[in-house]
Amino acid sequence: MTEWHEKKISRRSMLKMTGIGAAGAIIGASGFGGVMKAMGSDLTAPKAVKNSIAFYGKHQAGITTPSQTNVYFASLDVVVTTKKEMRELMQLWTPMIEKLMAGEEVATSTNVHIPPNDTGEAEGLDAKNCTITIGVGPSLFDKVGLTAEKPREFTDLPHFPKDQLDPAYTGGDLCIQACADDPQVAFHAVRNLVRVATGKVEVKWAQAGFNAFPPGGGTPRNLFAFKDGTENPVPDKEDHVVWVQPGESKAWLTGGTYLAVRRIQMHLETWDRTSLQEQENTFGRHRDTGAPMGMKDEFDNTDEAELPATSHVHLARQTKARMLRRSFSYASGTMTQTGAHDAGLLFISFQKHPQQFIDVQNSFGRLDKLNEYITHRGSALFACFPGVQKGSYLGETLFK
Amino acid sequence: MTEWHEKKISRRSMLKMTGIGAAGAIIGASGFGGVMKAMGSDLTAPKAVKNSIAFYGKHQAGITTPSQTNVYFASLDVVVTTKKEMRELMQLWTPMIEKLMAGEEVATSTNVHIPPNDTGEAEGLDAKNCTITIGVGPSLFDKVGLTAEKPREFTDLPHFPKDQLDPAYTGGDLCIQACADDPQVAFHAVRNLVRVATGKVEVKWAQAGFNAFPPGGGTPRNLFAFKDGTENPVPDKEDHVVWVQPGESKAWLTGGTYLAVRRIQMHLETWDRTSLQEQENTFGRHRDTGAPMGMKDEFDNTDEAELPATSHVHLARQTKARMLRRSFSYASGTMTQTGAHDAGLLFISFQKHPQQFIDVQNSFGRLDKLNEYITHRGSALFACFPGVQKGSYLGETLFK
Repeated sequence: MTEWHEKKISRRSMLKMTGIGAAGAIIGASGFGGVMKAMGSDLTAPKAVKNSIAFYGKHQAGITTPSQTNVYFASLDVVVTTKKEMRELMQLWTPMIEKLMAGEEVATSTNVHIPPNDTGEAEGLDAKNCTITIGVGPSLFDKVGLTAEKPREFTDLPHFPKDQLDPAYTGGDLCIQACADDPQVAFHAVRNLVRVATGKVEVKWAQAGFNAFPPGGGTPRNLFAFKDGTENPVPDKEDHVVWVQPGESKAWLTGGTYLAVRRIQMHLETWDRTSLQEQENTFGRHRDTGAPMGMKDEFDNTDEAELPATSHVHLARQTKARMLRRSFSYASGTMTQTGAHDAGLLFISFQKHPQQFIDVQNSFGRLDKLNEYITHRGSALFACFPGVQKGSYLGETLFK
Repeated sequence: MTEWHEKKISRRSMLKMTGIGAAGAIIGASGFGGVMKAMGSDLTAPKAVKNSIAFYGKHQAGITTPSQTNVYFASLDVVVTTKKEMRELMQLWTPMIEKLMAGEEVATSTNVHIPPNDTGEAEGLDAKNCTITIGVGPSLFDKVGLTAEKPREFTDLPHFPKDQLDPAYTGGDLCIQACADDPQVAFHAVRNLVRVATGKVEVKWAQAGFNAFPPGGGTPRNLFAFKDGTENPVPDKEDHVVWVQPGESKAWLTGGTYLAVRRIQMHLETWDRTSLQEQENTFGRHRDTGAPMGMKDEFDNTDEAELPATSHVHLARQTKARMLRRSFSYASGTMTQTGAHDAGLLFISFQKHPQQFIDVQNSFGRLDKLNEYITHRGSALFACFPGVQKGSYLGETLFK
């Protein structure tokens, strides 16, 4: 786990500043005024809770934040049609996300005659390093009258060789990446955000994922048992890999980043019939240590001469493109048709330009030895807003 | 979490005693002799590893063992047709399960020209309190020539009012309940057991689940935010609820138990539109504290007069039937047709007679207020063997 420059900014309620209130979790009220009137919301500031990550900052959390053990990733389609409604949605979500990350209920109420404002399944737990990261998909802009604000580079990802994308796991107008060191906390976050947005968004697809960190830290292993994420950008030194710099895209995305997500089925049965040598040649790393081929330690320099020409690592290095990977494994039962494990990698990467991801994928192309063992079944691309300053709300640069 | 009488029995290899060897994870070799010859297995005893639970004992682990945070539950169909093949499968699995529970690789090899004997994704982790519990389904007996050994009481569960069972999550000849305080460790166990049994079993269905324990312990909340498992049998005092006593069933099941599993979708969207009062009336408990209606603390005595006649707790108490519940939540994305959360409870209960579970379900019948908010979509019943003594193997009493 890397320690990226997460700035600890003291947390304080922004409710009075925005005038929105913790317009929490009541359903069915018409409009925000109705929501606010109908509930006896707790408008006090979130209290300090164990294992919480700062919400306010230059960038959204959950990107360079050290990875948690769990993710619940949801891709949403919007039902709303205007910029104003998007703004209201973000103004509704922002104080909730602050509370969710602080390990607080999204809102509390003592009125037993209305639905509880928080769905409650995370009650009694701490913040579990919860982060919530919001992005918008390329399909959103036309739908809400923001076509002119869509960055030129922001289109659906191209078809890559061997893609077998299932529409049920592809695309989306909005994403919520909820991470936490507990699956219930991550799910709770998505559930509560979706709940207050009933009639404004619909869940298109969602996927839970996990990482198993070795005791004492270190790079987790994917379901092929190889360490995943070793060659990530160096914190602080490679900020330009991840964050959109001024002038590099539409102004609203400065300080933001692109999130690429791929649901990659790993054919465990085939892999498990493959010799260790072939497995290591496929990745270009040793399974046990994570070291590059011919080396001893995970972070030893790579000797290109040792890497098979079709190895995953070699091909990834053929392009100079860099990106920050922050993936999770999933194990979701069996594939309906084959009975094979429905398991693999919920690949997530962050980069300031989609081309970085595309270049790496194209470098794998048809050559990557790993292709024999994986199938990309889901895919989406989202632009994640910059971080939130006190008094502001998520996506203000786009929806103001 | 209750501290049931888990006896810590020191762990030692049973490999020499059984003469089976760690006939681990190589695939495709024909027969066990071939497996053993083909691999350079590590036949030494498992070493002491942190957070491991004793494998040997009067009963299988994972039943009265304090619940872990994660489960990976797999229901399998057998391809084999004889008692001898079942015995060989259990003789293959037993030393592997011992190693998996000890946090060891199922077998190790230094030969890079064969597939690794352990799939490796749990390497570097500790045992994470892994337990593996094996049971047989009612459909197994005729398939492997054991019709005469099928207990009279062991039939498929009856159709209950409002059941909407999906064949994709129903039944099975064998089950593996792998629990651990890490989802990757639980999945790793199922994967490796299924892998060595290729050609002998097929995965029919599988489901991952989780529980979020409050810091410091306590009853976890289900996705309706209510504490689940409060009224479980009292350890030591109610052993007769769980374990088949001599003469109560076929002799091979003495010391064993029946496992009922139900995949129960919880309609979170509907629930979340329901007032707190209605939610509490539905369960017959207070959400916040878990206390029975009108009471203050979770473990306060229930005042029947306070319980609504159609509340879940009241109806459960109408029958004297008791059972040990050991359930997990699941959140598996969205329902294809509706876009609703595909989330709920992987209900698991243990009881010495299926009628205990049936009585409770029948008591709920059409009356249970909870019926409005849940749909049973999967179901299976398994008979779990008694525990294993050194020198023996799982299921010896049935397959010897």
